[in-house]
Amino acid sequence: MSRTAIVLLSGGMDSSTCLAWARAEGMDCHTLAFDYGQRHHAELAAAARMSTTLGARSHRVMRLDPQQFAGSALTDQQIAVPQSASTGIPSTYVPARNTIFLAMALGYAELMQADAIVIGVNAIDYSGYPDCRPAFIEAFRQVAALATRAAVEGRPTAILAPLQNLGKAEIARLGLSLGVDFAQTVTCYQADEQGRACGLCDACRLRRQGFVDAGLADPTRYD
Amino acid sequence: MSRTAIVLLSGGMDSSTCLAWARAEGMDCHTLAFDYGQRHHAELAAAARMSTTLGARSHRVMRLDPQQFAGSALTDQQIAVPQSASTGIPSTYVPARNTIFLAMALGYAELMQADAIVIGVNAIDYSGYPDCRPAFIEAFRQVAALATRAAVEGRPTAILAPLQNLGKAEIARLGLSLGVDFAQTVTCYQADEQGRACGLCDACRLRRQGFVDAGLADPTRYD
Repeated sequence: MSRTAIVLLSGGMDSSTCLAWARAEGMDCHTLAFDYGQRHHAELAAAARMSTTLGARSHRVMRLDPQQFAGSALTDQQIAVPQSASTGIPSTYVPARNTIFLAMALGYAELMQADAIVIGVNAIDYSGYPDCRPAFIEAFRQVAALATRAAVEGRPTAILAPLQNLGKAEIARLGLSLGVDFAQTVTCYQADEQGRACGLCDACRLRRQGFVDAGLADPTRYD
Repeated sequence: MSRTAIVLLSGGMDSSTCLAWARAEGMDCHTLAFDYGQRHHAELAAAARMSTTLGARSHRVMRLDPQQFAGSALTDQQIAVPQSASTGIPSTYVPARNTIFLAMALGYAELMQADAIVIGVNAIDYSGYPDCRPAFIEAFRQVAALATRAAVEGRPTAILAPLQNLGKAEIARLGLSLGVDFAQTVTCYQADEQGRACGLCDACRLRRQGFVDAGLADPTRYD
């Protein structure tokens, strides 16, 4: 029996690689993106594009109240996006973001009778974001194992994090081996409306370094 | 130092009692309600009213994509609300609802620098809703202890469920002892626009029985 998965898809490098991985594993995939008042919509356009290109069955965008996320650089135009290596938790941190995304995905998984949720957290994220760490993912697994009708009936929703132990170079290699066209993905925190990257923000730097470390050409479209 | 709490407030008997409890404990309270496409808005009006009456500092309504909750009797006019005692999980079950509400509250707590979230789950809910059970609340506590910047910095958000071991009669007594005017709360699944209860649905039956069992007059305004 083939599995059905909800794939959290932001349109960036990591989540697109997750979708390609789930498809390669033979899963029927329904992708889920969130419109939570990001600075730009190029990210959402990239998510819709990657969903189609990589063969998902459906794509849904859920809107979240942007007020919920006030005070973060990703949604508040008054706070500058950090452009150099930062220590500690970045100002682009959105309070409880992955908890909220996983919770919404859990409800959507039950609705779609999906067996699994796939999320693209990885080793690079761990340094700054507490809700990307393995212990957090494991804690949410326990919630998913208790929260839903499906769980009570013996079909708990699995939380899969296939990139959990990978760095950006390994993700670049994995994605390419699975046929992801990274030129079509948007990682930049402040991409323009055409999805061209700034090349300066934390996300751009980490992504570029990933291709360098993997010995691969960087296909990113820069501004 | 007084604590600051986010109180999940639906405008019903349980969450209003929670708010009165938190105020009696000396907490600064910010109430949070969700508009997720409920059948009626009397519930949301009751939440705003109880927030003010019981002395919360602020009240916020967050809107959630109703599509997320398609397929439940609470949001889908095509599915009848059950009017007799049901066994197993009720059709009014909304997929992952408390997981989503707690996740949103967790983000809001971090934004408001609140120490705690108060949720009105109780012993009556346990029979039908998996996401009201003590094991679920405990699992979400672990998520909250790992997910946020506040948690990393040693100030994890507490998840308080003061009604966890109480039945409806005990909640009625507690609420009255704390000065809750239950006539102003709305519990009914299908209250009219003035907040008058049907007296027939599961929620109405449980509420009415609570007052009977407590030996108290039922102040509910019926249709």
